[in-house]
Amino acid sequence: MNIVLFEPDEFQKPLLRTDERAVHILQVLRRSEGDDFDAGILNGPKGKAIVTKIGEDALSLEFNWNSDEEPALYPIDLVVGLSRPQTNRKILQDATALGVRSIRFVTTERGEPSYASSKLWTTGEWRRHVVAGVAQAFTTRMPQVYFEMSLKDAIDALDATPTRIALDNYEAEIGLGEIDATSSIGLALGSERGWTGKERELLRENGYTLAHLGPRPLRTETAAIAGIALLLEMFW
Amino acid sequence: MNIVLFEPDEFQKPLLRTDERAVHILQVLRRSEGDDFDAGILNGPKGKAIVTKIGEDALSLEFNWNSDEEPALYPIDLVVGLSRPQTNRKILQDATALGVRSIRFVTTERGEPSYASSKLWTTGEWRRHVVAGVAQAFTTRMPQVYFEMSLKDAIDALDATPTRIALDNYEAEIGLGEIDATSSIGLALGSERGWTGKERELLRENGYTLAHLGPRPLRTETAAIAGIALLLEMFW
Repeated sequence: MNIVLFEPDEFQKPLLRTDERAVHILQVLRRSEGDDFDAGILNGPKGKAIVTKIGEDALSLEFNWNSDEEPALYPIDLVVGLSRPQTNRKILQDATALGVRSIRFVTTERGEPSYASSKLWTTGEWRRHVVAGVAQAFTTRMPQVYFEMSLKDAIDALDATPTRIALDNYEAEIGLGEIDATSSIGLALGSERGWTGKERELLRENGYTLAHLGPRPLRTETAAIAGIALLLEMFW
Repeated sequence: MNIVLFEPDEFQKPLLRTDERAVHILQVLRRSEGDDFDAGILNGPKGKAIVTKIGEDALSLEFNWNSDEEPALYPIDLVVGLSRPQTNRKILQDATALGVRSIRFVTTERGEPSYASSKLWTTGEWRRHVVAGVAQAFTTRMPQVYFEMSLKDAIDALDATPTRIALDNYEAEIGLGEIDATSSIGLALGSERGWTGKERELLRENGYTLAHLGPRPLRTETAAIAGIALLLEMFW
Protein backbone atom coordinates (compact mmCIF):
# COMPACT_ATOMS: atom_id res chain seq x y z
CA MET A 1 0.00 0.00 0.00
CA ASN A 2 1.99 2.98 -1.28
CA ILE A 3 -0.87 5.41 -0.61
CA VAL A 4 -3.92 5.13 1.66
CA LEU A 5 -7.07 5.52 -0.43
CA PHE A 6 -10.51 6.63 0.68
CA GLU A 7 -13.92 6.62 -0.96
CA PRO A 8 -15.31 10.09 -1.74
CA ASP A 9 -18.01 9.71 0.93
CA GLU A 10 -15.83 8.42 3.74
CA PHE A 11 -12.74 10.59 4.01
CA GLN A 12 -14.40 13.16 6.25
CA LYS A 13 -15.50 10.60 8.84
CA PRO A 14 -13.26 9.20 11.61
CA LEU A 15 -11.42 6.05 10.48
CA LEU A 16 -12.31 3.07 12.69
CA ARG A 17 -9.28 1.39 14.20
CA THR A 18 -10.64 -1.95 13.00
CA ASP A 19 -10.37 -0.71 9.40
CA GLU A 20 -7.36 -2.25 7.66
CA ARG A 21 -6.17 1.21 6.64
CA ALA A 22 -6.05 2.31 10.29
CA VAL A 23 -4.06 -0.84 11.12
CA HIS A 24 -1.71 -0.01 8.23
CA ILE A 25 -1.26 3.63 9.35
CA LEU A 26 -0.51 2.67 12.97
CA GLN A 27 1.34 -0.62 12.61
CA VAL A 28 3.10 -0.55 9.25
CA LEU A 29 3.64 3.18 8.76
CA ARG A 30 3.93 3.61 12.58
CA ARG A 31 2.33 7.05 12.53
CA SER A 32 1.57 8.95 15.78
CA GLU A 33 -0.58 12.01 16.40
CA GLY A 34 0.74 14.90 14.30
CA ASP A 35 2.42 12.64 11.71
CA ASP A 36 1.35 12.60 8.08
CA PHE A 37 1.16 10.00 5.30
CA ASP A 38 0.28 9.84 1.59
CA ALA A 39 -3.45 9.69 0.99
CA GLY A 40 -5.93 10.06 -1.84
CA ILE A 41 -9.58 9.90 -2.76
CA LEU A 42 -10.47 7.27 -5.34
CA ASN A 43 -10.80 9.00 -8.71
CA GLY A 44 -10.06 12.26 -6.89
CA PRO A 45 -7.10 14.24 -5.55
CA LYS A 46 -3.94 12.98 -3.88
CA GLY A 47 -2.07 14.63 -1.02
CA LYS A 48 -1.14 14.25 2.63
CA ALA A 49 -3.28 13.14 5.53
CA ILE A 50 -2.36 14.24 9.06
CA VAL A 51 -3.26 12.09 12.05
CA THR A 52 -4.89 14.71 14.28
CA LYS A 53 -6.08 12.30 16.98
CA ILE A 54 -5.70 8.61 17.78
CA GLY A 55 -8.89 7.82 19.70
CA GLU A 56 -9.82 4.57 21.40
CA ASP A 57 -12.08 3.53 18.52
CA ALA A 58 -11.04 5.68 15.57
CA LEU A 59 -8.42 7.94 14.02
CA SER A 60 -9.21 11.55 13.18
CA LEU A 61 -7.52 12.74 10.00
CA GLU A 62 -7.09 16.02 8.19
CA PHE A 63 -6.22 16.22 4.50
CA ASN A 64 -4.18 18.59 2.37
CA TRP A 65 -4.82 17.84 -1.27
CA ASN A 66 -2.40 18.66 -4.10
CA SER A 67 -3.76 21.00 -6.73
CA ASP A 68 -2.28 18.96 -9.62
CA GLU A 69 -4.58 16.52 -11.29
CA GLU A 70 -3.49 12.89 -11.27
CA PRO A 71 -2.11 11.70 -14.64
CA ALA A 72 -4.63 9.98 -16.91
CA LEU A 73 -4.63 6.22 -17.30
CA TYR A 74 -3.14 4.71 -20.45
CA PRO A 75 -5.49 4.31 -23.45
CA ILE A 76 -5.45 0.53 -23.25
CA ASP A 77 -8.72 -1.38 -23.03
CA LEU A 78 -8.18 -4.91 -21.80
CA VAL A 79 -10.57 -7.78 -22.56
CA VAL A 80 -9.99 -10.97 -20.55
CA GLY A 81 -11.76 -14.30 -20.83
CA LEU A 82 -13.22 -15.16 -17.40
CA SER A 83 -10.75 -17.50 -15.73
CA ARG A 84 -10.39 -19.01 -12.28
CA PRO A 85 -11.07 -16.40 -9.61
CA GLN A 86 -7.47 -16.49 -8.31
CA THR A 87 -6.25 -15.72 -11.84
CA ASN A 88 -8.71 -12.87 -12.27
CA ARG A 89 -7.79 -11.40 -8.87
CA LYS A 90 -4.19 -11.06 -10.02
CA ILE A 91 -5.22 -9.56 -13.35
CA LEU A 92 -7.49 -7.04 -11.62
CA GLN A 93 -4.64 -5.89 -9.39
CA ASP A 94 -1.75 -6.01 -11.87
CA ALA A 95 -3.52 -4.56 -14.91
CA THR A 96 -4.74 -1.74 -12.65
CA ALA A 97 -1.25 -1.14 -11.28
CA LEU A 98 0.15 -1.05 -14.81
CA GLY A 99 -2.42 1.64 -15.66
CA VAL A 100 -4.91 0.33 -18.24
CA ARG A 101 -8.05 2.46 -18.47
CA SER A 102 -10.57 -0.39 -18.68
CA ILE A 103 -10.89 -4.13 -18.12
CA ARG A 104 -13.74 -6.22 -19.48
CA PHE A 105 -14.11 -9.78 -18.18
CA VAL A 106 -16.02 -11.75 -20.76
CA THR A 107 -17.52 -15.21 -21.00
CA THR A 108 -15.80 -17.34 -23.62
CA GLU A 109 -16.59 -20.74 -25.08
CA ARG A 110 -13.76 -22.44 -23.20
CA GLY A 111 -14.27 -20.63 -19.88
CA GLU A 112 -16.21 -22.40 -17.11
CA PRO A 113 -19.67 -20.79 -16.84
CA SER A 114 -19.40 -21.16 -13.03
CA TYR A 115 -16.56 -18.58 -12.91
CA ALA A 116 -19.14 -15.83 -13.45
CA SER A 117 -20.90 -16.70 -10.19
CA SER A 118 -17.73 -16.64 -8.07
CA LYS A 119 -17.92 -14.46 -4.97
CA LEU A 120 -15.19 -12.37 -6.60
CA TRP A 121 -17.92 -10.94 -8.83
CA THR A 122 -21.09 -11.43 -6.78
CA THR A 123 -19.90 -9.81 -3.54
CA GLY A 124 -18.08 -6.83 -5.03
CA GLU A 125 -14.76 -8.32 -3.91
CA TRP A 126 -13.30 -7.47 -7.35
CA ARG A 127 -13.21 -3.78 -6.39
CA ARG A 128 -10.84 -4.46 -3.50
CA HIS A 129 -8.24 -5.85 -5.93
CA VAL A 130 -8.63 -2.82 -8.17
CA VAL A 131 -8.10 -0.49 -5.22
CA ALA A 132 -5.00 -2.49 -4.23
CA GLY A 133 -3.63 -1.95 -7.74
CA VAL A 134 -4.38 1.77 -7.63
CA ALA A 135 -2.62 2.06 -4.24
CA GLN A 136 0.37 0.06 -5.55
CA ALA A 137 0.73 2.54 -8.43
CA PHE A 138 0.67 5.52 -6.02
CA THR A 139 -2.27 7.16 -7.72
CA THR A 140 -6.04 7.53 -7.31
CA ARG A 141 -7.45 6.76 -10.76
CA MET A 142 -9.42 3.55 -11.11
CA PRO A 143 -9.92 1.77 -14.43
CA GLN A 144 -13.48 0.99 -15.54
CA VAL A 145 -14.18 -2.67 -14.84
CA TYR A 146 -17.00 -4.54 -16.54
CA PHE A 147 -18.17 -8.13 -16.21
CA GLU A 148 -21.31 -10.13 -17.02
CA MET A 149 -20.70 -9.60 -20.74
CA SER A 150 -19.91 -11.79 -23.72
CA LEU A 151 -16.86 -11.51 -25.96
CA LYS A 152 -19.20 -10.06 -28.60
CA ASP A 153 -20.40 -7.36 -26.17
CA ALA A 154 -16.79 -6.35 -25.46
CA ILE A 155 -15.90 -6.32 -29.15
CA ASP A 156 -18.90 -4.08 -29.84
CA ALA A 157 -17.92 -1.74 -27.01
CA LEU A 158 -14.40 -1.35 -28.44
CA ASP A 159 -15.57 -0.94 -32.01
CA ALA A 160 -13.99 2.53 -32.36
CA THR A 161 -10.60 1.59 -30.87
CA PRO A 162 -8.08 2.07 -33.70
CA THR A 163 -5.68 -0.77 -32.80
CA ARG A 164 -7.27 -4.09 -31.87
CA ILE A 165 -5.15 -7.07 -30.86
CA ALA A 166 -5.98 -10.55 -29.58
CA LEU A 167 -3.26 -12.64 -27.96
CA ASP A 168 -3.15 -16.14 -29.36
CA ASN A 169 -0.65 -18.97 -29.02
CA TYR A 170 -1.80 -20.94 -32.02
CA GLU A 171 -2.76 -18.79 -35.00
CA ALA A 172 -0.85 -15.56 -34.33
CA GLU A 173 0.61 -13.92 -37.43
CA ILE A 174 2.90 -11.48 -35.64
CA GLY A 175 4.68 -10.86 -32.33
CA LEU A 176 2.91 -8.38 -30.08
CA GLY A 177 5.97 -6.13 -30.01
CA GLU A 178 5.95 -5.77 -33.80
CA ILE A 179 2.55 -4.12 -33.95
CA ASP A 180 2.60 -0.39 -34.57
CA ALA A 181 -0.06 0.75 -32.20
CA THR A 182 -1.79 4.05 -32.54
CA SER A 183 -3.50 6.30 -30.04
CA SER A 184 -5.57 3.69 -28.25
CA ILE A 185 -5.48 -0.07 -28.11
CA GLY A 186 -7.89 -2.90 -27.41
CA LEU A 187 -6.05 -6.00 -26.14
CA ALA A 188 -7.99 -9.26 -25.82
CA LEU A 189 -6.77 -12.34 -23.92
CA GLY A 190 -8.66 -15.63 -23.94
CA SER A 191 -9.51 -17.71 -20.91
CA GLU A 192 -6.92 -20.23 -19.67
CA ARG A 193 -7.79 -22.65 -22.43
CA GLY A 194 -7.59 -20.06 -25.20
CA TRP A 195 -9.90 -19.10 -28.05
CA THR A 196 -12.11 -21.42 -30.08
CA GLY A 197 -12.11 -21.29 -33.89
CA LYS A 198 -15.42 -19.42 -33.79
CA GLU A 199 -14.01 -16.81 -31.42
CA ARG A 200 -10.94 -16.33 -33.61
CA GLU A 201 -13.24 -15.78 -36.56
CA LEU A 202 -15.29 -13.21 -34.61
CA LEU A 203 -12.11 -11.41 -33.57
CA ARG A 204 -10.70 -11.37 -37.10
CA GLU A 205 -13.98 -10.17 -38.58
CA ASN A 206 -13.85 -7.27 -36.15
CA GLY A 207 -10.35 -6.18 -37.08
CA TYR A 208 -8.37 -7.89 -34.33
CA THR A 209 -4.82 -8.90 -35.25
CA LEU A 210 -3.83 -12.20 -33.63
CA ALA A 211 -0.46 -11.66 -31.95
CA HIS A 212 1.82 -13.86 -29.87
CA LEU A 213 4.08 -13.42 -26.84
CA GLY A 214 6.73 -15.84 -28.04
CA PRO A 215 6.60 -19.61 -28.36
CA ARG A 216 6.31 -20.49 -24.66
CA PRO A 217 2.79 -20.89 -23.22
CA LEU A 218 2.31 -18.50 -20.28
CA ARG A 219 -0.23 -18.38 -17.49
CA THR A 220 -3.08 -15.99 -18.29
CA GLU A 221 -2.00 -13.57 -15.55
CA THR A 222 1.61 -13.62 -16.74
CA ALA A 223 0.55 -13.06 -20.35
CA ALA A 224 -1.63 -10.14 -19.23
CA ILE A 225 1.30 -8.37 -17.57
CA ALA A 226 3.73 -9.15 -20.40
CA GLY A 227 1.25 -8.03 -23.06
CA ILE A 228 0.33 -4.78 -21.32
CA ALA A 229 4.02 -3.99 -20.68
CA LEU A 230 4.86 -4.37 -24.37
CA LEU A 231 2.09 -1.93 -25.29
CA LEU A 232 2.84 0.56 -22.51
CA GLU A 233 6.38 0.99 -23.70
CA MET A 234 5.24 3.50 -26.32
CA PHE A 235 3.67 5.73 -23.68
CA TRP A 236 6.73 5.92 -21.38
CA MET B 1 0.93 -28.43 -15.69
CA ASN B 2 1.26 -28.53 -19.49
CA ILE B 3 3.77 -31.39 -19.37
CA VAL B 4 4.57 -33.94 -16.66
CA LEU B 5 8.25 -33.66 -15.74
CA PHE B 6 10.50 -36.27 -14.19
CA GLU B 7 13.96 -36.21 -12.66
CA PRO B 8 16.61 -38.08 -14.66
CA ASP B 9 16.88 -40.75 -11.95
CA GLU B 10 13.18 -41.37 -11.42
CA PHE B 11 11.52 -41.81 -14.78
CA GLN B 12 12.28 -45.51 -15.01
CA LYS B 13 10.70 -46.32 -11.66
CA PRO B 14 6.95 -46.81 -11.07
CA LEU B 15 5.21 -43.54 -10.16
CA LEU B 16 3.56 -43.78 -6.75
CA ARG B 17 -0.13 -42.94 -6.83
CA THR B 18 0.44 -40.56 -3.91
CA ASP B 19 2.78 -38.49 -6.10
CA GLU B 20 1.06 -35.29 -7.29
CA ARG B 21 1.97 -36.14 -10.87
CA ALA B 22 0.09 -39.46 -10.64
CA VAL B 23 -2.90 -37.59 -9.21
CA HIS B 24 -2.66 -35.14 -12.11
CA ILE B 25 -2.40 -37.92 -14.72
CA LEU B 26 -5.40 -39.82 -13.35
CA GLN B 27 -7.67 -37.03 -12.10
CA VAL B 28 -6.96 -33.98 -14.25
CA LEU B 29 -5.80 -35.59 -17.49
CA ARG B 30 -8.11 -38.60 -16.80
CA ARG B 31 -5.76 -41.08 -18.43
CA SER B 32 -6.46 -44.84 -18.38
CA GLU B 33 -4.21 -47.79 -19.20
CA GLY B 34 -2.97 -47.44 -22.78
CA ASP B 35 -3.43 -43.65 -22.90
CA ASP B 36 -0.53 -41.28 -23.35
CA PHE B 37 0.36 -37.77 -22.17
CA ASP B 38 3.13 -35.20 -22.67
CA ALA B 39 6.17 -35.92 -20.54
CA GLY B 40 9.77 -34.84 -20.22
CA ILE B 41 12.95 -35.30 -18.23
CA LEU B 42 14.25 -32.17 -16.55
CA ASN B 43 17.06 -30.78 -18.68
CA GLY B 44 16.54 -33.74 -20.99
CA PRO B 45 14.24 -34.90 -23.79
CA LYS B 46 10.50 -34.37 -24.22
CA GLY B 47 8.02 -36.81 -25.65
CA LYS B 48 5.04 -38.98 -24.80
CA ALA B 49 4.53 -41.24 -21.80
CA ILE B 50 2.17 -44.19 -22.07
CA VAL B 51 0.33 -45.49 -19.01
CA THR B 52 1.10 -49.20 -19.29
CA LYS B 53 -0.42 -50.20 -15.95
CA ILE B 54 -2.41 -48.55 -13.19
CA GLY B 55 -1.50 -50.59 -10.12
CA GLU B 56 -2.89 -50.31 -6.63
CA ASP B 57 0.11 -48.32 -5.41
CA ALA B 58 1.80 -47.01 -8.53
CA LEU B 59 1.57 -46.29 -12.23
CA SER B 60 3.86 -47.99 -14.72
CA LEU B 61 4.89 -45.77 -17.60
CA GLU B 62 6.75 -46.15 -20.86
CA PHE B 63 8.34 -43.24 -22.67
CA ASN B 64 8.90 -42.33 -26.31
CA TRP B 65 11.27 -39.40 -26.49
CA ASN B 66 11.44 -36.96 -29.41
CA SER B 67 14.77 -36.81 -31.15
CA ASP B 68 14.70 -32.98 -31.42
CA GLU B 69 16.56 -31.12 -28.77
CA GLU B 70 14.51 -28.67 -26.69
CA PRO B 71 15.10 -25.02 -27.68
CA ALA B 72 17.71 -23.18 -25.61
CA LEU B 73 16.67 -20.72 -22.92
CA TYR B 74 16.94 -17.00 -23.68
CA PRO B 75 20.29 -15.33 -22.92
CA ILE B 76 18.87 -13.27 -20.08
CA ASP B 77 20.50 -13.43 -16.65
CA LEU B 78 18.18 -12.12 -13.96
CA VAL B 79 19.41 -10.70 -10.65
CA VAL B 80 16.73 -10.16 -8.00
CA GLY B 81 17.07 -8.62 -4.54
CA LEU B 82 15.82 -11.17 -1.99
CA SER B 83 12.23 -10.25 -1.20
CA ARG B 84 9.42 -11.81 0.78
CA PRO B 85 9.20 -15.54 0.06
CA GLN B 86 5.76 -15.22 -1.60
CA THR B 87 7.22 -12.65 -4.00
CA ASN B 88 10.25 -14.79 -4.78
CA ARG B 89 8.05 -17.86 -5.36
CA LYS B 90 6.20 -15.99 -8.12
CA ILE B 91 9.44 -14.73 -9.64
CA LEU B 92 10.93 -18.24 -9.63
CA GLN B 93 7.92 -19.61 -11.49
CA ASP B 94 7.23 -16.73 -13.87
CA ALA B 95 10.81 -15.90 -14.85
CA THR B 96 11.32 -19.60 -15.52
CA ALA B 97 8.15 -19.81 -17.61
CA LEU B 98 9.25 -16.76 -19.61
CA GLY B 99 12.54 -18.54 -20.33
CA VAL B 100 15.45 -16.70 -18.68
CA ARG B 101 18.60 -18.81 -18.49
CA SER B 102 19.61 -17.86 -14.93
CA ILE B 103 18.24 -16.23 -11.79
CA ARG B 104 20.43 -14.96 -8.96
CA PHE B 105 18.73 -14.00 -5.70
CA VAL B 106 21.00 -11.58 -3.91
CA THR B 107 21.07 -9.91 -0.52
CA THR B 108 20.63 -6.15 -0.77
CA GLU B 109 20.93 -3.37 1.78
CA ARG B 110 17.18 -2.83 1.94
CA GLY B 111 16.20 -6.51 1.93
CA GLU B 112 15.38 -8.21 5.26
CA PRO B 113 18.28 -10.51 6.20
CA SER B 114 15.70 -13.03 7.49
CA TYR B 115 14.44 -13.63 3.94
CA ALA B 116 17.55 -15.70 3.26
CA SER B 117 16.63 -18.21 5.97
CA SER B 118 13.08 -18.75 4.68
CA LYS B 119 12.11 -22.39 4.14
CA LEU B 120 11.77 -21.46 0.46
CA TRP B 121 15.58 -21.55 0.34
CA THR B 122 16.52 -23.86 3.21
CA THR B 123 14.27 -26.82 2.31
CA GLY B 124 14.84 -26.81 -1.44
CA GLU B 125 11.25 -25.67 -1.98
CA TRP B 126 12.52 -23.12 -4.54
CA ARG B 127 13.13 -25.91 -7.03
CA ARG B 128 9.45 -26.88 -7.04
CA HIS B 129 8.51 -23.41 -8.31
CA VAL B 130 11.15 -23.62 -11.02
CA VAL B 131 9.81 -26.99 -12.15
CA ALA B 132 6.26 -25.53 -12.21
CA GLY B 133 7.54 -22.75 -14.50
CA VAL B 134 9.26 -25.25 -16.78
CA ALA B 135 6.08 -27.34 -16.99
CA GLN B 136 3.99 -24.22 -17.70
CA ALA B 137 6.26 -23.39 -20.64
CA PHE B 138 5.89 -26.93 -22.05
CA THR B 139 9.60 -27.58 -22.06
CA THR B 140 12.23 -29.37 -19.98
CA ARG B 141 15.05 -26.85 -19.63
CA MET B 142 15.62 -25.38 -16.19
CA PRO B 143 17.35 -22.06 -15.61
CA GLN B 144 20.33 -21.97 -13.28
CA VAL B 145 19.21 -20.62 -9.91
CA TYR B 146 21.64 -19.22 -7.37
CA PHE B 147 21.09 -17.78 -3.91
CA GLU B 148 23.20 -17.07 -0.82
CA MET B 149 25.13 -14.42 -2.73
CA SER B 150 25.58 -10.67 -2.49
CA LEU B 151 24.77 -8.14 -5.20
CA LYS B 152 28.53 -7.80 -5.70
CA ASP B 153 28.89 -11.57 -6.25
CA ALA B 154 26.17 -11.47 -8.93
CA ILE B 155 27.71 -8.45 -10.61
CA ASP B 156 31.06 -10.25 -10.71
CA ALA B 157 29.45 -13.36 -12.16
CA LEU B 158 27.86 -11.35 -14.98
CA ASP B 159 30.96 -9.34 -15.72
CA ALA B 160 31.18 -10.54 -19.33
CA THR B 161 27.51 -9.97 -20.19
CA PRO B 162 27.49 -7.30 -22.91
CA THR B 163 24.25 -5.50 -21.94
CA ARG B 164 23.76 -4.80 -18.24
CA ILE B 165 20.61 -3.14 -16.96
CA ALA B 166 19.29 -2.36 -13.49
CA LEU B 167 15.63 -1.44 -13.05
CA ASP B 168 15.21 1.67 -10.95
CA ASN B 169 12.20 3.88 -10.23
CA TYR B 170 14.18 6.86 -9.02
CA GLU B 171 17.36 7.52 -10.98
CA ALA B 172 16.66 5.81 -14.29
CA GLU B 173 17.96 7.64 -17.35
CA ILE B 174 16.05 5.67 -19.96
CA GLY B 175 13.00 3.45 -20.45
CA LEU B 176 13.82 -0.26 -20.54
CA GLY B 177 12.27 -0.57 -24.00
CA GLU B 178 14.64 2.03 -25.45
CA ILE B 179 17.78 0.04 -24.69
CA ASP B 180 19.34 -1.66 -27.68
CA ALA B 181 20.29 -4.95 -26.21
CA THR B 182 22.86 -7.20 -27.76
CA SER B 183 23.40 -10.92 -27.64
CA SER B 184 22.98 -11.42 -23.90
CA ILE B 185 21.57 -9.33 -21.11
CA GLY B 186 21.97 -9.02 -17.37
CA LEU B 187 18.82 -7.56 -15.76
CA ALA B 188 18.95 -6.56 -12.09
CA LEU B 189 15.90 -5.78 -9.94
CA GLY B 190 16.20 -4.50 -6.38
CA SER B 191 14.32 -5.85 -3.39
CA GLU B 192 10.84 -4.45 -2.70
CA ARG B 193 12.29 -1.28 -1.24
CA GLY B 194 14.66 -0.64 -4.13
CA TRP B 195 18.37 0.14 -4.34
CA THR B 196 20.40 2.25 -1.93
CA GLY B 197 22.70 5.01 -3.22
CA LYS B 198 25.70 2.74 -2.61
CA GLU B 199 24.15 -0.06 -4.65
CA ARG B 200 23.34 2.31 -7.51
CA GLU B 201 26.97 3.41 -7.47
CA LEU B 202 28.17 -0.20 -7.56
CA LEU B 203 25.83 -0.95 -10.46
CA ARG B 204 26.89 2.12 -12.43
CA GLU B 205 30.60 1.43 -11.83
CA ASN B 206 30.02 -2.01 -13.31
CA GLY B 207 28.39 -0.78 -16.48
CA TYR B 208 24.73 -1.17 -15.54
CA THR B 209 22.34 1.30 -17.17
CA LEU B 210 19.55 2.34 -14.80
CA ALA B 211 16.27 1.91 -16.68
CA HIS B 212 12.62 2.38 -15.75
CA LEU B 213 9.34 0.65 -16.49
CA GLY B 214 7.28 3.83 -16.62
CA PRO B 215 6.31 6.20 -13.83
CA ARG B 216 4.04 3.86 -11.85
CA PRO B 217 5.64 1.84 -9.04
CA LEU B 218 5.04 -1.88 -9.62
CA ARG B 219 5.29 -4.89 -7.32
CA THR B 220 8.64 -6.64 -7.66
CA GLU B 221 7.05 -9.71 -9.25
CA THR B 222 5.09 -7.57 -11.74
CA ALA B 223 8.20 -5.57 -12.64
CA ALA B 224 10.11 -8.82 -13.17
CA ILE B 225 7.58 -10.10 -15.71
CA ALA B 226 7.22 -6.73 -17.45
CA GLY B 227 10.99 -6.23 -17.63
CA ILE B 228 11.72 -9.70 -18.96
CA ALA B 229 8.90 -9.40 -21.55
CA LEU B 230 10.35 -6.16 -22.90
CA LEU B 231 13.74 -7.82 -23.35
CA LEU B 232 12.37 -11.06 -24.79
CA GLU B 233 10.62 -9.24 -27.58
CA MET B 234 13.84 -9.13 -29.57
CA PHE B 235 14.18 -12.93 -29.48
CA TRP B 236 10.65 -13.72 -30.73
